[in-house]
Amino acid sequence: MKLRRRLLAESMGTAMLLAIVIGSGIMGERLAGGNQAVALLGNTLATGAGLIVLIHLFGPISGAHFNPVITLAALLIRETSAGIAMLYVAAQLAGAILGAWAAHAMFAEPILQLSGKARDGFPQGLSECIATFGLIGTILATRRTRPELTPTAVGLYIVSAYWFTASTAFANPAVTIARSLSDTFAGIAPHSVPLFVAAQLAGALAAIAIFPWLYEEERVR
Amino acid sequence: MKLRRRLLAESMGTAMLLAIVIGSGIMGERLAGGNQAVALLGNTLATGAGLIVLIHLFGPISGAHFNPVITLAALLIRETSAGIAMLYVAAQLAGAILGAWAAHAMFAEPILQLSGKARDGFPQGLSECIATFGLIGTILATRRTRPELTPTAVGLYIVSAYWFTASTAFANPAVTIARSLSDTFAGIAPHSVPLFVAAQLAGALAAIAIFPWLYEEERVR
Amino acid sequence: MKLRRRLLAESMGTAMLLAIVIGSGIMGERLAGGNQAVALLGNTLATGAGLIVLIHLFGPISGAHFNPVITLAALLIRETSAGIAMLYVAAQLAGAILGAWAAHAMFAEPILQLSGKARDGFPQGLSECIATFGLIGTILATRRTRPELTPTAVGLYIVSAYWFTASTAFANPAVTIARSLSDTFAGIAPHSVPLFVAAQLAGALAAIAIFPWLYEEERVR
Amino acid sequence: MKLRRRLLAESMGTAMLLAIVIGSGIMGERLAGGNQAVALLGNTLATGAGLIVLIHLFGPISGAHFNPVITLAALLIRETSAGIAMLYVAAQLAGAILGAWAAHAMFAEPILQLSGKARDGFPQGLSECIATFGLIGTILATRRTRPELTPTAVGLYIVSAYWFTASTAFANPAVTIARSLSDTFAGIAPHSVPLFVAAQLAGALAAIAIFPWLYEEERVR
Repeated sequence: MKLRRRLLAESMGTAMLLAIVIGSGIMGERLAGGNQAVALLGNTLATGAGLIVLIHLFGPISGAHFNPVITLAALLIRETSAGIAMLYVAAQLAGAILGAWAAHAMFAEPILQLSGKARDGFPQGLSECIATFGLIGTILATRRTRPELTPTAVGLYIVSAYWFTASTAFANPAVTIARSLSDTFAGIAPHSVPLFVAAQLAGALAAIAIFPWLYEEERVR
Repeated sequence: MKLRRRLLAESMGTAMLLAIVIGSGIMGERLAGGNQAVALLGNTLATGAGLIVLIHLFGPISGAHFNPVITLAALLIRETSAGIAMLYVAAQLAGAILGAWAAHAMFAEPILQLSGKARDGFPQGLSECIATFGLIGTILATRRTRPELTPTAVGLYIVSAYWFTASTAFANPAVTIARSLSDTFAGIAPHSVPLFVAAQLAGALAAIAIFPWLYEEERVR
Repeated sequence: MKLRRRLLAESMGTAMLLAIVIGSGIMGERLAGGNQAVALLGNTLATGAGLIVLIHLFGPISGAHFNPVITLAALLIRETSAGIAMLYVAAQLAGAILGAWAAHAMFAEPILQLSGKARDGFPQGLSECIATFGLIGTILATRRTRPELTPTAVGLYIVSAYWFTASTAFANPAVTIARSLSDTFAGIAPHSVPLFVAAQLAGALAAIAIFPWLYEEERVR
Repeated sequence: MKLRRRLLAESMGTAMLLAIVIGSGIMGERLAGGNQAVALLGNTLATGAGLIVLIHLFGPISGAHFNPVITLAALLIRETSAGIAMLYVAAQLAGAILGAWAAHAMFAEPILQLSGKARDGFPQGLSECIATFGLIGTILATRRTRPELTPTAVGLYIVSAYWFTASTAFANPAVTIARSLSDTFAGIAPHSVPLFVAAQLAGALAAIAIFPWLYEEERVR
């Protein structure tokens, strides 16, 4: 597969992911009449269903990472090179920001925004660490045992993590940065971004340490 | 497969799709006590689940287009002829209108209605363009790589698009026209129809331009 | 498979179906604080998910009809005999009533009840006719083309039909009779039962007339 | 597979299950503005989706019991020994408690809590008995006929059982004990635990008695 196709797929997929996350958040908040749980239900369904589709759409081209810590995991288990990984992360970041702006354009919001929603403190960091640990674990485990189910497993995992973590499971540094550019339901204040990214890296590294050991004896299919 | 069977399948499938979209919209609005997000949740579940079933039901007979821009895509990638395509579109339109009327009959609404719900402006057009781009992309990509998953992918995509676009993702000219004949939750004012159809065509053409190129190197299964 | 096992499977499956339909209706109504759409969302999820499981559970034993009009369809397409069909219907009815009573016992309701919820008039009858037409069509079509998907397709169809019909899609005479014995969210007044059952029979017969013709040329798998 | 890997998988899986059940309950209750049905919808989606993922994740290592009555069933049908079973139950209990505490930490709740939510009386016991009967039946039946579907069937069953039982279907002694340590949406007062555990054992034993007999003639795949 030519590299430019792979990078375009990463950018398009991450852009669509952000349009989904931010757009459905705006839709939920506008329609829910103040009931944040109803807004989150719509946001959850849209993100879970959309993510499954996007992984099927772009997986055969680029692997459908859409997430720098997934690219990092691919680098650490030697499935990609450092050069490709850096290009992937750049493509993800560019796509994520464009996707956030596309959501704003669809919902007649100002394109350029900065979120004012602080998400700080140990519980938020722990939430991101656990959310990312589970996401990377889901990918590493299902790819080994039932790779045809990885897209569905990732979508279902995110559905669950939107609700069981206090942070609603960003679990993705590119998504986190792009969501800091949206002062809507899904936003995060820029000053909270470093905590989230650090916690996501910690969770990803823990998963990369534990899951391959857990599956060491499992026959590769 | 005899042509009359294929046309009947297109008509029946599009009729059932409209009965689902409009009927579940009425049910949602009547029961939700003014919470539009709760109404949209019911509308979303019904449409996504129903669409998956309808594609399984009529796909083996007609391909289960139910949508003039999908038929257009089939024509442009030379899977069908112009004559068949025109008959398909006529069958879809007739079915769509009958389905809208069936929904009205089931819910004790006047059969003949015109929607008064204006859906105008650039954000609505952009929403329809992006929604249709993603829908056609989902079909073109999954048919090439995992055709057994196309029905599910289309249903999940629509679940997502109902929430991440400001227009709730009509993404279908026949559906758009039939929904202009319903002054209910799912309606669209007749004067807004041309914008929606034009945006849907633009989105479909963009997907037809990009996705086959993206998958050029991918082995056909 | 011995007949007593098949009849026990039909009874147990129909009992569990009614416990699910009525139980989740009570739960929804008790918790939803008057928002009927929220109650119906819970009722829908429980019924759709539960029905898929029940068909997987008892399908290998009895075919998992749980529904006299499905047994009628099996008789008309000569997959079963009149004697077996009558025993199936009796097993379904007995199971359905026991399941309704089990739901009452779980929710600390009086066991013996009669519903006071009238569901009358042409729109309700049309709703049941269309709902049952679609249900039987779903079964006849998917069994021919993708039988491994029939349980999922039936569950998704019911999710959709709970919302797109004005009657919330009973689509099953045994379920209708048992629900007349429950004065709760899912109930139906006894005097409305004959309309529902007649409409269900009409819808089933229409599907049995149309779908086999539609699939006549389709290769059996 | 080495035993320490299996026990770690049981502990991690049960811990994540409890974090999901309790965490999503807290999230639902905090956001739902008093509408308990909306809170339960979020709790249901998170638990069902998460459980499917966890069974895929840890099933290849430990069988993904996460539940003493499932381990008991494995013992009674001679798939495991009494010694292994006791270690499994210990691993499940330790994981369950840690998972409850992790949920508290993520949501900035005091780590150590005792629930004050009484769940007493015959209807609650009957609910747990039926819920567990169905859960064990689902596992015993699908493992025999369509083992690749067991994770999905278990998740869908729990989605249904959260709504059709008056107790919201704990169906798991380790989950019950850990939930007594959380004074949140998903909690259960310690004095109600013995009733729940006894009812779960009764339901499990009934399923172990009936389902293998029902499937006696069914060819093993």
